[in-house]
Amino acid sequence: MKKVEAIIKPFKLDEVKEALQEIGVQGLSVLEVKGFGRQKGHTELYRGAEYVVDFLPKVKIEVVLSDDQVDAAIAAIIDAAKTDKIGDGKIFVSDVSQAIRIRTGESGEDAL
Amino acid sequence: MKKVEAIIKPFKLDEVKEALQEIGVQGLSVLEVKGFGRQKGHTELYRGAEYVVDFLPKVKIEVVLSDDQVDAAIAAIIDAAKTDKIGDGKIFVSDVSQAIRIRTGESGEDAL
Amino acid sequence: MKKVEAIIKPFKLDEVKEALQEIGVQGLSVLEVKGFGRQKGHTELYRGAEYVVDFLPKVKIEVVLSDDQVDAAIAAIIDAAKTDKIGDGKIFVSDVSQAIRIRTGESGEDAL
Ligand SMILES: Nc1ncnc2c1ncn2[C@@H]1O[C@H](COP(=O)(O)OP(=O)(O)OP(=O)(O)O)[C@@H](O)[C@H]1O
Ligand SMILES: Nc1ncnc2c1ncn2[C@@H]1O[C@H](COP(=O)(O)OP(=O)(O)OP(=O)(O)O)[C@@H](O)[C@H]1O
Ligand SMILES: Nc1ncnc2c1ncn2[C@@H]1O[C@H](COP(=O)(O)OP(=O)(O)OP(=O)(O)O)[C@@H](O)[C@H]1O
Ligand SMILES: [Mg+2]
Ligand SMILES: [Mg+2]
Ligand SMILES: [Mg+2]
Repeated sequence: MKKVEAIIKPFKLDEVKEALQEIGVQGLSVLEVKGFGRQKGHTELYRGAEYVVDFLPKVKIEVVLSDDQVDAAIAAIIDAAKTDKIGDGKIFVSDVSQAIRIRTGESGEDAL
Repeated sequence: MKKVEAIIKPFKLDEVKEALQEIGVQGLSVLEVKGFGRQKGHTELYRGAEYVVDFLPKVKIEVVLSDDQVDAAIAAIIDAAKTDKIGDGKIFVSDVSQAIRIRTGESGEDAL
Repeated sequence: MKKVEAIIKPFKLDEVKEALQEIGVQGLSVLEVKGFGRQKGHTELYRGAEYVVDFLPKVKIEVVLSDDQVDAAIAAIIDAAKTDKIGDGKIFVSDVSQAIRIRTGESGEDAL
């Protein structure tokens, strides 16, 4: 199993969520973060206004899925999150060794 | 070392925290998240009311611990977090290669 | 690639961010967390006042970087975050297998 983390523009959350559901994702978590990428200290557009700030508000989606869903999930996120303007975000992938669904006790991919 | 992440119902935080302390956990972090599992789009009970929403508020506990604490931690979390109602949550386990306690410089399991 | 997570005192965020930028870090994310370490249940100083609480507010920095930046990042974080008082925080390191920059499609270390 893998964890895919996507840090995206907040207004893209619903589109990315729907794109992930379309490829079969059945659960995910969303966290509010603030961050910067390479334009730190420069201006970036946020809700139509230019900001010169260190940190900009982003949302981070965390989704644990099976290895064979990773490529489709990445493609779905890119497709939904991309605006072609700076600050579109990053995707990171890492390993998950175990998953458990608390109510049922199911584990592994059955738990996702 | 491993990181155990548990996404649970917010009102279960204190019980889960105490269950983890009873098995010897000495530190943990808590994050507010919103998320959905398999009932997305259906109703789920939250604070006694039914909600038809995409995302429900959850808390995520992150605890880094030694490999030999993982099974006890999972059992403790399940035992404390379970209500047998939908939305009880998920547990994910992943590897951590290094840990450092900033004040003392201790590293590895000594740092936990 | 590696993910370095540092859970630090909130007032240290700017210093740690600058220390990371000085060693070449070009992007990072910040999350608000609450947590405890070994003094749980004892008092800890927060903004000059003593608190007897379970959880104290901390910030978590997440930075994905190349393997050869990890040691410098850890040293930079320790140097900037350390006050020699309890509660200075923890650093955790884990593997990241893939990174993508959404706007450009770059992947791997080029995406960081
Ligand atoms: N190396 C990194 N580690 C952790 N989080 C990162 C990293 N790089 C970027 N982020 C997170 O992703 C968010 C979006 O980054 P952003 O899209 O601005 O990256 P970028 O490299 O500057 O690309 P672009 O040129 O398209 O803006 C940041 O605000 C931050 O929260
Ligand atoms: N695959 C996943 N990846 C990341 N987070 C997840 C995933 N599945 C669930 N979560 C998180 O766990 C929370 C609780 O999920 P939930 O317990 O509803 O799972 P479920 O599979 O629907 O089980 P149940 O049928 O018992 O409700 C979600 O709100 C979400 O934050
Ligand atoms: N094992 C752990 N897993 C996850 N998060 C942790 C762990 N230990 C500590 N943390 C997080 O780091 C924060 C700071 O911990 P803290 O610096 O108090 O650790 P400590 O071991 O008590 O060291 P000190 O004696 O210097 O206070 C905690 O509030 C918590 O958010
Ligand atoms: Mg940018
Ligand atoms: Mg559910
Ligand atoms: Mg402490």
